[in-house]
Amino acid sequence: MSDLHLLSPAGFRAAGVRAGIKVKNANDIGLLVMDAAGPAAAVFTTNPVHAAPVVVGLSHVKSGKLRGVVMNSGCANACTGKQGLADAEEMCAIAAGVAGGVAKEYLPGSTGVIGHLLPMEKVRTGIVAAGRALGNSAEHADEFARAILTTDTKKKAAAERIVVGGHEVTVAGVCKGAGMIGPKMSLKGPAVPLHATMLGYLTTDAKVPAGALRKMLQSAVGMSFNAVLIDDHMSTNDTAAILSSGRSAARVSAGKGLGLLSEALTDVCRSLAYQIAADGEGATKVFKVTVRGARSVADAMAMARAVCASPLVKCAIHGNDPNWGRIVSGAGLAGIPFDQMQTSLLLQGVEVFRGGVPRAFNDGMLSAAMNAPEVTAVLTVGGGKGVGTVYTCDFSKEYVTINADYHT
Amino acid sequence: MSDLHLLSPAGFRAAGVRAGIKVKNANDIGLLVMDAAGPAAAVFTTNPVHAAPVVVGLSHVKSGKLRGVVMNSGCANACTGKQGLADAEEMCAIAAGVAGGVAKEYLPGSTGVIGHLLPMEKVRTGIVAAGRALGNSAEHADEFARAILTTDTKKKAAAERIVVGGHEVTVAGVCKGAGMIGPKMSLKGPAVPLHATMLGYLTTDAKVPAGALRKMLQSAVGMSFNAVLIDDHMSTNDTAAILSSGRSAARVSAGKGLGLLSEALTDVCRSLAYQIAADGEGATKVFKVTVRGARSVADAMAMARAVCASPLVKCAIHGNDPNWGRIVSGAGLAGIPFDQMQTSLLLQGVEVFRGGVPRAFNDGMLSAAMNAPEVTAVLTVGGGKGVGTVYTCDFSKEYVTINADYHT
Repeated sequence: MSDLHLLSPAGFRAAGVRAGIKVKNANDIGLLVMDAAGPAAAVFTTNPVHAAPVVVGLSHVKSGKLRGVVMNSGCANACTGKQGLADAEEMCAIAAGVAGGVAKEYLPGSTGVIGHLLPMEKVRTGIVAAGRALGNSAEHADEFARAILTTDTKKKAAAERIVVGGHEVTVAGVCKGAGMIGPKMSLKGPAVPLHATMLGYLTTDAKVPAGALRKMLQSAVGMSFNAVLIDDHMSTNDTAAILSSGRSAARVSAGKGLGLLSEALTDVCRSLAYQIAADGEGATKVFKVTVRGARSVADAMAMARAVCASPLVKCAIHGNDPNWGRIVSGAGLAGIPFDQMQTSLLLQGVEVFRGGVPRAFNDGMLSAAMNAPEVTAVLTVGGGKGVGTVYTCDFSKEYVTINADYHT
Repeated sequence: MSDLHLLSPAGFRAAGVRAGIKVKNANDIGLLVMDAAGPAAAVFTTNPVHAAPVVVGLSHVKSGKLRGVVMNSGCANACTGKQGLADAEEMCAIAAGVAGGVAKEYLPGSTGVIGHLLPMEKVRTGIVAAGRALGNSAEHADEFARAILTTDTKKKAAAERIVVGGHEVTVAGVCKGAGMIGPKMSLKGPAVPLHATMLGYLTTDAKVPAGALRKMLQSAVGMSFNAVLIDDHMSTNDTAAILSSGRSAARVSAGKGLGLLSEALTDVCRSLAYQIAADGEGATKVFKVTVRGARSVADAMAMARAVCASPLVKCAIHGNDPNWGRIVSGAGLAGIPFDQMQTSLLLQGVEVFRGGVPRAFNDGMLSAAMNAPEVTAVLTVGGGKGVGTVYTCDFSKEYVTINADYHT
């Protein structure tokens, strides 16, 4: 398992190179390509303020077919008007030129500061260099995974292998997170306005039609990338895409393996989303909030999200402070009615509130238990069947340091 | 003007005393009473998780008549079940006993940590002491204003005097803010779930029926307390109330002075709300966000609120960082569609974005201009008539310090 990587699925090559776009000397151009165009699907930010690569990407992926992904970090190409659109298109054209296929078979991606035009000379040189550096080794996967990062302190990768009819099918992915993280991505993209730059790129060698890929992707994203937030600031650039090479000998269909494949994809996306929470800007721990007993999954997710979005809650988690009233009241911020008298809360496994009243617990012991890599809250808000889990991190002074002086 | 205070309107007395509820040695019981019961109105938190004094207060104010307000700081009496309700009722009964009238003519209020029962022995002793200390001097107003504070670093007060038909009418108020601030209060209280503990108490000697008071209060609150946020965490206890003694000789009616009075009330509430933003936990400056060109006032307010709620935006403001992309994208978090190509942004008076593209500006000069007690953003999102302004503060490391260790 642990040896699997982004390029383990057959038919993929990738590269990550340094083009000097980022201030710090690190990979900032990533290229991921299939040997031939194949079924693909992508979800995009639903922020009405969305970047040029989102507009171009939506248009390119409509065909349900892609050859590859070309991206840069260090500049978001957002709020850049027509020139921004032209630059995103040009990235695709250069990628096609150096890696095969045509421009519209490429999904462009950018992440970084908003409101600056791409330094196209560096970008062009970078993509050409990436085209020459393409390969399918673990090292190539690693170079690509690092090219997509911004304030992330570590690369994020996951992969899973299943067997369908005696043949192996592999699903793998990489992503970035860290800040401006509150994705609410949709296949339709920016239309219903919704929040980070989350970039996630997934590969599989499964033989799956684009329609099935789309369904699987939206479902997986709903339980993973769209269920993680750092600051709940939905980015202009959020994008998650899956490309399938179809090179596995397994025949995946509705009755045969599709469920398994969908589960594997969800697992990979969840692992990636968890890595985003764990590596949030200034994060020292993951905070996992589950809401049970809501009227619907959507209600449960909205309430869990509201708890995770509260800076007050996140500061308490940072301080190992069992200030559970913030969690219970935080659920109320979602705008969904529930009866506090029918509500209970388990914090790090300890029941602190039930039936409208506090439970006796040892403050010091609970605080000590919260001093852990993961803190969990399970809030039951009634007798409904809706359950949902959202992941976030704590809120530290380091977050302020990082974000009070990122641009200048 | 500057000599006016909470007790300048005729017919009011108040007191603030130390009952030992707060850890720190400071006033924590406040009592505000009129010489006789009079027209009153109040708005309450719309969080489904709401405190006992909110439940009791809603019930008491239904009559449109109050004698006074009795409140404590240091404990929110929230998530405290039936005992909490009984305690809030008892506070009113004791107040009536020591200051006149009957229990249900008192509006109870509490602010502090959630999930603890009130230390009723201290509360009882405190209310009795407050009853003995009642008076109508500026010092009495000051003692009351300090009794309602929690993490606030200074008291918040405002007052205005108008003349109607040759006679003076005074409107005055005090409030608290600091943390858990994101009020969305309504006359109906917790029903439509909505966010601080914001407590605001207003006095007037105007002769106004309760119905008119209610309308004026909801309108004023919409443009003031409900338009300020620190962390956008709506509290369990938010309450703003106005009591009128009717002692002014002016005859206020629909055609005569009611508009003036309503404006004065709005001014007082706005001044108080501004003071909340300026004294937000860890705040070093006020950030004022105006959205213009929206389809409605509600849309404009929602978009301005979304910008103010973003920790990313607030950190940039803290760092004097003209990272305007966060502001523009922040408006998109409200879930309201707008065309980024028709959008422009003035940051501290400098146009940084128009028609989908960045404007040239001097980064260093703008950053220097942002190093001020107030930073303004004016975002035009289209050609609509909707305009709205929301106030917040910057987000500093001090906020984390305060909130990572408040409970324990």
